Amino acid sequence: MKEQVIPYKIYLEESEMPKQWYNVRADMTNKPAPLLNPETLQPLTKAELSQIFCDELVEQELDDTTAYIDIPKEIHDFYKMYRPSPLVRAYCLEEKLQTPAKIYYKFEGNNTSGSHKLNSAIAQAYYAKKQGLKGVTTETGAGQWGTALSMACAYLNLDCKVFMVKNSYELKPFRREVMRTYGANVTASPSETTKVGRDMLERFPGTGGSLGCAISEAVEVATQTEGYRYVLGSVLNQVMLHQSIIGLEAKAAADKYGIKFDTVIGCAGGGSNLGGLIAPFMGEKLRGEADYDIVAVEPASCPSFTRGKFAYDFCDTGMICPLAKMYTLGSSFMPSSHHAGGLRFHGMSPTLSQLYDDGFMRAKSYVQSEIFEAAVEFAKVEGILPAPESSHAIKAAIDEALRCRETGEEKNILFGLTGTGYFDLMGYEQYNNGTITDYVPTDEELQKGFDRLPKVNR
Amino acid sequence: MKEQVIPYKIYLEESEMPKQWYNVRADMTNKPAPLLNPETLQPLTKAELSQIFCDELVEQELDDTTAYIDIPKEIHDFYKMYRPSPLVRAYCLEEKLQTPAKIYYKFEGNNTSGSHKLNSAIAQAYYAKKQGLKGVTTETGAGQWGTALSMACAYLNLDCKVFMVKNSYELKPFRREVMRTYGANVTASPSETTKVGRDMLERFPGTGGSLGCAISEAVEVATQTEGYRYVLGSVLNQVMLHQSIIGLEAKAAADKYGIKFDTVIGCAGGGSNLGGLIAPFMGEKLRGEADYDIVAVEPASCPSFTRGKFAYDFCDTGMICPLAKMYTLGSSFMPSSHHAGGLRFHGMSPTLSQLYDDGFMRAKSYVQSEIFEAAVEFAKVEGILPAPESSHAIKAAIDEALRCRETGEEKNILFGLTGTGYFDLMGYEQYNNGTITDYVPTDEELQKGFDRLPKVNR
Repeated sequence: MKEQVIPYKIYLEESEMPKQWYNVRADMTNKPAPLLNPETLQPLTKAELSQIFCDELVEQELDDTTAYIDIPKEIHDFYKMYRPSPLVRAYCLEEKLQTPAKIYYKFEGNNTSGSHKLNSAIAQAYYAKKQGLKGVTTETGAGQWGTALSMACAYLNLDCKVFMVKNSYELKPFRREVMRTYGANVTASPSETTKVGRDMLERFPGTGGSLGCAISEAVEVATQTEGYRYVLGSVLNQVMLHQSIIGLEAKAAADKYGIKFDTVIGCAGGGSNLGGLIAPFMGEKLRGEADYDIVAVEPASCPSFTRGKFAYDFCDTGMICPLAKMYTLGSSFMPSSHHAGGLRFHGMSPTLSQLYDDGFMRAKSYVQSEIFEAAVEFAKVEGILPAPESSHAIKAAIDEALRCRETGEEKNILFGLTGTGYFDLMGYEQYNNGTITDYVPTDEELQKGFDRLPKVNR
Repeated sequence: MKEQVIPYKIYLEESEMPKQWYNVRADMTNKPAPLLNPETLQPLTKAELSQIFCDELVEQELDDTTAYIDIPKEIHDFYKMYRPSPLVRAYCLEEKLQTPAKIYYKFEGNNTSGSHKLNSAIAQAYYAKKQGLKGVTTETGAGQWGTALSMACAYLNLDCKVFMVKNSYELKPFRREVMRTYGANVTASPSETTKVGRDMLERFPGTGGSLGCAISEAVEVATQTEGYRYVLGSVLNQVMLHQSIIGLEAKAAADKYGIKFDTVIGCAGGGSNLGGLIAPFMGEKLRGEADYDIVAVEPASCPSFTRGKFAYDFCDTGMICPLAKMYTLGSSFMPSSHHAGGLRFHGMSPTLSQLYDDGFMRAKSYVQSEIFEAAVEFAKVEGILPAPESSHAIKAAIDEALRCRETGEEKNILFGLTGTGYFDLMGYEQYNNGTITDYVPTDEELQKGFDRLPKVNR
């Protein structure tokens, strides 16, 4: 252990990078509920899942007993190009807040995808390549996941078909161009290239599309094209597994300097970042080796943990995907179109949902004007312009540090800075112009989503 | 010295970061020629320069004898937030090229300004703050320098007024919003807020502006507003000094692993990156301690080194700034509007110009379709989407590595990856669509610029 002068940024040596992912399900007494076939309401079999996902990922999806899974050398080599990511001591933010707390953040934005999404994209692309597949399909909304997958596929020389929600395709041409630059085939969804898309266009001519429809198109192409499978950037157990690299690195870096975190904070949409960041800390907590205050932060406009139901639901608004047991607002829930702060998914990772339901973590929510205010405060003192998503964790960390200023506690706070906001400047523009609006759904609005939850819950 | 297993990325420890800048002029026998007052044609005095620049920067501008200048603690602390930048071994590019050469790049893009510009922005803002000034003014074209300066000023709580070329202001709203988010006052140039701007608008209603006009507006405001000075992101000797941090870090990282570079390659617009990257290597070469093949790379559309004249010229198209002796295409030269690849400045750092004229470095140029092709090849194997500017260095490094494949030489090649291309996606879009055009000025076109060089040269 090095002496206690903490640098601004702690980088692991390449030789210190984790060589295995950690599967938190292995240490859970109450395992996450299985995915169900929406027609039979029976747990999905390996054979059924293998029609959608590639084989090794199906194994990972279903494995809830193996605690550590080797990271293949090829993925580890790719990780070395942009990892280890730094564990940063937020000295300037601490000074600005005049807090006795010590604030750390794990920064995942230093790669062209601009976020942690690349950690799972390369893994999913690698297993597809290993299986001898020709390519993968996926959907993307804002474009972060699509960009990450395009990068991974370019590296492995794998075909990549991305269905991008039409509104985003038109409003975020730069995200689209990054994907095209990496060789991806990017199609505005709904499109004429699938049955689902053609039906949608006939029913709603001029629609701007939705994530649910884009998922349906991507799944249709994957299941009906020889040599293709579908990949997804969040929610799934396999994604939580790959993203555990975030928390494992953070813990290894902290251990080098004898830092023991008290509070671990992550933003939560589908849960990919939160699940990854907290993994090893949650493991210690589950095994009774240490205690941590683990906090999920979500937008008040899409409050799945704080106001949702723990129930079986569809992962997509099109209601064609498997049923997952999770905290959900109902697959018909649509966050306000005024919401610029990301994390718009109606549900939540089944693994995280179970952990939350069992009391191993807490959750809080903020409206987006609070989020952008925290983002700008952070950017001015720490330099990095954060993604609005990441800024949910920043806001919660600032609040915790200010609480410590009141109580005098010298807590060690860790939060996940999942990415940069370089492609989110329309949201910042609204904030700078004072035209950003906060939206919180009423109980009645939420009830409509709950009323449409699948019958299996009744 | 560590054993010879070179990691993908070499990071210096915080304690190993350089504590002094290196001033290459101290080791030059032929010093760069002094800036001249355009009216008297006499070297500018300290008093004259102090009306434009703040005092300590004037000292640095004029000091051509002190080899090492301390980096103030406050600047060093700011550097720690985003530096040291990694020295990266391009293993994947080497494999793709099947070259025996070893390729390294110093990556300066891991900060929100997206480039090396922040290294000098924080220094210039710091000295302004130290002098008790209220704020600084500057111009920005594409927005990289304006962003860097906005970040530095936000950190120091200094007012920042940026005149942004109107075309860019309208076509690059996201760059504008980053600056506004950091609290900068961003004005489209020409504007109604200055005499120069009003004159320009009266003569050319509806003009999209130019860098020359934006410089004039920024200088007018700086010199006529109590407590303000003007700052500039390239060309000046002081900028070369601050940017030496790039080369010093690269050399320290290489020394840790016993790496001895043979070739050092940098892109060149005004020279801020090239001058910084090569500084310590050029110093060794000037002192006769080591030899390096030092290569400047510029766009064929704006070929100041390869086809320009070494002469006194204005730094701005508006012809109000001091005269600098440099390689220039003439201050009236305008690169084609079809040029998306950056590095559009008509002149070149006087320091680098003198070194080039004295034979201490060579220069080459490429057309932009070659540049974007190299950029995409690099992005696909190394992950990072490079700025078009940086891609000039990538192209030259690839060519050198391919030459080594022919000859079998195991050369160590270093190039500067100055920044990311996240705000340059319109150029990539043109490339992806196959609509990018190459432009090379004819000798007759260049002669027009030379004919208008100031009379002092005759």
